[in-house]
Amino acid sequence: MATDFLDAAAAIVGSDAVLTGEAAAPYCADKRGRYFGNALAVVFSSDTQQVAEIVKLCSANRIAIVPQGGNTSLCGASVPLSEGRQIVLNLSRMNRIRAIDPVNYTMTVEAGCILAGVREAAEQNNRLFPLELTATLDHCEIGGNLSTNAGGNGVLRYGNARDLVLGLEVVLPDGRIWNGLRSLRKDNSGYDLKHLFIGAEGTLGIITAAVLKLFPRPQSSATAIVAITDPAIAVRLLAHIRAICGDTLSAFELVSRSSLDIVFRHVPGTAEPFAKRYEYYLLIQSSDVLQRPLDDALRSAIQGFGAGILEFAVTADVEAAESWWKLRKNISDAQKHEGISIKHDISVPVSRVAEFVARADAALHAAYPGVRIVTFGHMGDGNIHYNVSMPDAGQNEIFIAQQEGAVNKLVYQVVRELGGSISAEHGLGQLKRDTIREYKDPLEMDLMRNIKQTLDPHGLMNPGKVL
Amino acid sequence: MATDFLDAAAAIVGSDAVLTGEAAAPYCADKRGRYFGNALAVVFSSDTQQVAEIVKLCSANRIAIVPQGGNTSLCGASVPLSEGRQIVLNLSRMNRIRAIDPVNYTMTVEAGCILAGVREAAEQNNRLFPLELTATLDHCEIGGNLSTNAGGNGVLRYGNARDLVLGLEVVLPDGRIWNGLRSLRKDNSGYDLKHLFIGAEGTLGIITAAVLKLFPRPQSSATAIVAITDPAIAVRLLAHIRAICGDTLSAFELVSRSSLDIVFRHVPGTAEPFAKRYEYYLLIQSSDVLQRPLDDALRSAIQGFGAGILEFAVTADVEAAESWWKLRKNISDAQKHEGISIKHDISVPVSRVAEFVARADAALHAAYPGVRIVTFGHMGDGNIHYNVSMPDAGQNEIFIAQQEGAVNKLVYQVVRELGGSISAEHGLGQLKRDTIREYKDPLEMDLMRNIKQTLDPHGLMNPGKVL
Repeated sequence: MATDFLDAAAAIVGSDAVLTGEAAAPYCADKRGRYFGNALAVVFSSDTQQVAEIVKLCSANRIAIVPQGGNTSLCGASVPLSEGRQIVLNLSRMNRIRAIDPVNYTMTVEAGCILAGVREAAEQNNRLFPLELTATLDHCEIGGNLSTNAGGNGVLRYGNARDLVLGLEVVLPDGRIWNGLRSLRKDNSGYDLKHLFIGAEGTLGIITAAVLKLFPRPQSSATAIVAITDPAIAVRLLAHIRAICGDTLSAFELVSRSSLDIVFRHVPGTAEPFAKRYEYYLLIQSSDVLQRPLDDALRSAIQGFGAGILEFAVTADVEAAESWWKLRKNISDAQKHEGISIKHDISVPVSRVAEFVARADAALHAAYPGVRIVTFGHMGDGNIHYNVSMPDAGQNEIFIAQQEGAVNKLVYQVVRELGGSISAEHGLGQLKRDTIREYKDPLEMDLMRNIKQTLDPHGLMNPGKVL
Repeated sequence: MATDFLDAAAAIVGSDAVLTGEAAAPYCADKRGRYFGNALAVVFSSDTQQVAEIVKLCSANRIAIVPQGGNTSLCGASVPLSEGRQIVLNLSRMNRIRAIDPVNYTMTVEAGCILAGVREAAEQNNRLFPLELTATLDHCEIGGNLSTNAGGNGVLRYGNARDLVLGLEVVLPDGRIWNGLRSLRKDNSGYDLKHLFIGAEGTLGIITAAVLKLFPRPQSSATAIVAITDPAIAVRLLAHIRAICGDTLSAFELVSRSSLDIVFRHVPGTAEPFAKRYEYYLLIQSSDVLQRPLDDALRSAIQGFGAGILEFAVTADVEAAESWWKLRKNISDAQKHEGISIKHDISVPVSRVAEFVARADAALHAAYPGVRIVTFGHMGDGNIHYNVSMPDAGQNEIFIAQQEGAVNKLVYQVVRELGGSISAEHGLGQLKRDTIREYKDPLEMDLMRNIKQTLDPHGLMNPGKVL
């Protein structure tokens, strides 16, 4: 039966587009090497029709499908499970930009388009596509970005991936093609279906193309680095600056001393931003389409805040700003050199971020003396990356092996009490599939299951993820 | 059985909160007097628990529910059908503002809060809630605004009602309460359920409360009035100005000569903006939180456009601007004095607006010599209000009686060919429930029905609307 299926698949996409065994292996593990699965085959589709036919074939044979793009998921969403009974359907060959309409500020792209390429195509038309994922810009694909509702650095001003979509083309679990590729700013003609598929991590259907919103390109920017003792200052400063700078506020990132120390240790050409060392730093960016200097406005907004700011600097010079951004953007890479850690990608209301850090820190230091906490992230969205480890590599292995569950419980309990989410931007995938049941309203889980059952009655769309 | 039901309902909400007969009548007709229905009773709920118990009671008795707020629907979405077997569940008494968090830029409101009140409460906290529906600001309620995904004047910059929501509380068709009142900017912990209920016109559940996004209050603004011959100029001018003014561009409205003439005739204190008369006018607003003059930027952006602009004026003076806005904001009211017309609320891609107007105008003038077309609307969103009538009142009655269906067909055919929507911001309700089947992809209708069947298997939520 397996060979019949593979022959049938090859008849649809061509035999060069069906990989098995060794050739399939690279697509069965995630890029960070945390998840290893096995696939009956890895199938590459070249167009939407092929996706539809492969899905119909799988449906007829009750074979489950793992949709895959750049395979940069941080939670094992884009790799198959271990049994080897699923196929990986890779959309990377579907990388055409179908249309760009600069006057409508939209572009229509296929799922396999690499994010960096989408941004470039927009720029060539003097437009901005604001989704920006520093770490994976050159590898991740728009289909995956939408299926996981990617976040990143542009969210404060432009919203999540979900907010950048006007229309979708989706192959449904029964192989039918939904052409929802509308490029309308307003359409109240029924239920909004696109938001169901966006962020569903491929469990409700396969996004094959999308109409994306474009924006005018910013012409001016200013960046500030601000030293503070306590995230509580950051919370109030954010509200203060937003009320003055409004939509020009385009980034508000938090970086802890522990994050900086790791960067200095592993990233050449990085140095203390100020003569003195401080506990926390903020990177604040203001940018605007209207051509006019922004640094004075940002400077006076910070000066007008009053007590709590220890030291700060503002620049309108892009290169100077980049040397500060280096400190933020290299944290994840630098961490890899320090060995593994217990990572959290949490969100709370912006007004509760300081409370989260204080309470989670206290709980962890009490439970694990000497524990190292690397705190950084998109403070402007209430999204903190909060990574826990032991400074000593030897200790750390045992610590994680023995305590990961307990550490998660401590951290997630604080998140729960503050009305937050245990998955802010990375999604659930395999990583948090079980955990989410403990933290999400059973009624909401029930609604999700009912919708899954309705759209994918045979459970063939990325099973083992999310639900 | 009816009396038993009414007694049971009274036991839940109090006998003063259950109206029948004459007392119920005002809630069974829409505000414009286009739709007249009958209700078994009109029930007023004071809190979410009461809504849940009423829904359970109705579910047990298989009695259908029409959720109602300010009852300002333009398509009969908020009134019962004629048989008198449905109840109206009016949420107007649920008008508490549960919380305001200026630091998180959010507020939590109950469904019965009047939109104007929500905006005021935000302003008292130096924040803006940007949803603005000129005609009904003082009557419409936020529950209805969200259930219909209201549009209005702020969409170009702030998005539709859907984009202004972080969390929802919904009473499901089985009476369970979904507490999705999260105030998070990022949450990728499962399917996005809130977008299913927003814009569903009460057919999937009853929105009882919401967490709304707030914004910094604009501090400066500039307004331009621009005379043009042809909407094609407007399309290119919009793209041009947006690329220069970016997010400060907060309104871009189109007004036809025919619209102006009606306003002059019926609205005291209105006059030609320029000495000469022109075919089309644009009202363009730029506003910003950053305090700085915007009129120069707007003026030079318009000057830099080149040929096609016949005459224009720019002002930073709010009162001068208001006299121009009066021309736009009074069109709907002025039209009432001219008798009924065949109204359309359509959207097309912004880049196709001129094509829509040209092709629809041509088709109508060819089919109905002497026809009067009143064209105006939210050009910045590709949303045009396009109203067709005969200038002579006597003629008009017959014209509409005989030709409404044919006129709709002509207009909607152009909308279809341009990839538009026959309902941009008003929704489907009763008005377009049948028509939408001819214009929407059957597969999409099928998906909508499946979701309806899953969430509301007994079809008790606002039957006869949308689907």
